[in-house]
Amino acid sequence: MSVLIVGSTALDSIKTPQAKNPRLLGGSASHAAVAASFFGPVKLIGVVGEDFPKRYVRLYKRHRIDLEGLQILPGKTFHWSGEYEANMNNRRTLLTELGVFETFTPTLPRSHQASPFVLLANIAPSLQIHVLNQMQRPKFVAADTMDLWLNIALPDLLQLLKRLDAFVLNDSEAHQLTKEDNVFTALKKIHKLGPKYVVIKKGSHGSLLSGPKGFFICPAYPLHKVVDPTGAGDSFVGGMMGYLAAAKGGIDQNIRRAMIYGSVVASFCCEGFGLTRTTKIKRQQIDQRVKELERLTRF
Amino acid sequence: MSVLIVGSTALDSIKTPQAKNPRLLGGSASHAAVAASFFGPVKLIGVVGEDFPKRYVRLYKRHRIDLEGLQILPGKTFHWSGEYEANMNNRRTLLTELGVFETFTPTLPRSHQASPFVLLANIAPSLQIHVLNQMQRPKFVAADTMDLWLNIALPDLLQLLKRLDAFVLNDSEAHQLTKEDNVFTALKKIHKLGPKYVVIKKGSHGSLLSGPKGFFICPAYPLHKVVDPTGAGDSFVGGMMGYLAAAKGGIDQNIRRAMIYGSVVASFCCEGFGLTRTTKIKRQQIDQRVKELERLTRF
Repeated sequence: MSVLIVGSTALDSIKTPQAKNPRLLGGSASHAAVAASFFGPVKLIGVVGEDFPKRYVRLYKRHRIDLEGLQILPGKTFHWSGEYEANMNNRRTLLTELGVFETFTPTLPRSHQASPFVLLANIAPSLQIHVLNQMQRPKFVAADTMDLWLNIALPDLLQLLKRLDAFVLNDSEAHQLTKEDNVFTALKKIHKLGPKYVVIKKGSHGSLLSGPKGFFICPAYPLHKVVDPTGAGDSFVGGMMGYLAAAKGGIDQNIRRAMIYGSVVASFCCEGFGLTRTTKIKRQQIDQRVKELERLTRF
Repeated sequence: MSVLIVGSTALDSIKTPQAKNPRLLGGSASHAAVAASFFGPVKLIGVVGEDFPKRYVRLYKRHRIDLEGLQILPGKTFHWSGEYEANMNNRRTLLTELGVFETFTPTLPRSHQASPFVLLANIAPSLQIHVLNQMQRPKFVAADTMDLWLNIALPDLLQLLKRLDAFVLNDSEAHQLTKEDNVFTALKKIHKLGPKYVVIKKGSHGSLLSGPKGFFICPAYPLHKVVDPTGAGDSFVGGMMGYLAAAKGGIDQNIRRAMIYGSVVASFCCEGFGLTRTTKIKRQQIDQRVKELERLTRF
């Protein structure tokens, strides 16, 4: 089955102590869509400006991502610029130019409205709701978010939460949302806000699922070198939703493996700047790392 | 087989935002010995003062810990006092009174010198070496440490490392010792210093083994409430060594499960002040949590 993904489509200028990479393809929807594309058909909803490089359109197409929902508008593409410290955990934003993204209110192509799987990747919750309002009875809806929306758009986010099957957030956001130090107490509070499945991302420490069948501790694939973690969280949730949409059987039967696959795609993402590494891998390499994770965790 | 454990035997006064607990039984050797006692015979090497409460001697005895190597000397027992912040991760030391520990240079009873498994729990590396020098061809020697010794006794620690089978340290100590951000690069450097097995503890994020058979990602047992994490690391390594000493077969065959068992004993340790929770559990409860960890990580 296909997965519809809405989120940001951006140009990222990323600085690390090792290198400077201007205007890479980035944005939550780009990372999530490429990650999901390894498993099945993906429909992208986004907006870019006239300055959006043609090679990035070709890149989406090479991943067989349906671009009917990608608008190209007069003006500039959303541009984010950030700098990482040597440990690759702390980063600061140097610049955010919204460009055409500022007035983005997508109208979904008719053919997109019936997508059974919907991933509301990280954008403003009001936009996530706007897209969800256009969907016809989706089978499974997941959303990601970021600290910014907890700070400036909490009422919208709380509205959205009531309509989600799965909510994905990182550990510090879970703490920010619930004011709880303990992750189980935080999870209980988040479930009460709506979603049946809650996934807490913990970066290189993996992730934790809480769902109807209990908890799942999902490891991160351990990396020998982190080049650029930008988009790792988006790749995780994109890979997870791509796997879920493609898998036979129910959600509960597949969600653990879906998280493992998401985790592995995220590990590739971290090994290159932007999407440079992720776009070079084959499905077989993903399966190989999943097998390795099995070996690394068996006892 | 029996495991010989040397380390600190102390009284801990622990403050958390919830409660104040003066003069609990503590110290690296106390935690490690109780943890190891669930699996087989333990010989404790330590020193306490005349003020050491009789009830703590009885506690050791209830765990069938051999106390022939526990000296009771005129003077005061080592007393540590610390305070935790609400998140239970940051703690500060309020007071350290070494007491009789200041001149501790144990002579091992003859019957102890042939112990096949040796755990050099966290104390000064010079003392760890002093004990190791008295052992007759032990089968497996593991040591734990702390940041203090990296700061003030690094040459001793480097001497010790050459003689260890296994070295256990936490992630920030691994960084401090090697100056490496990436855990694999750090592990490679630590192996070069001597130990064939290196275990990196990551608190509530579990631990990572690097050994001749590759890596193992060991999860932490997730806790609904952390009451007091003091001694969790000592319990982990104590449980691990206790399991290893009791298990049939070689180290490589058993070390993953040994870490899982250590992780579970550490989880109980965190659920009460000092050793109050650990000393109330039965082996069956440990086995139950190990089974639960299997369910929580299967995919």
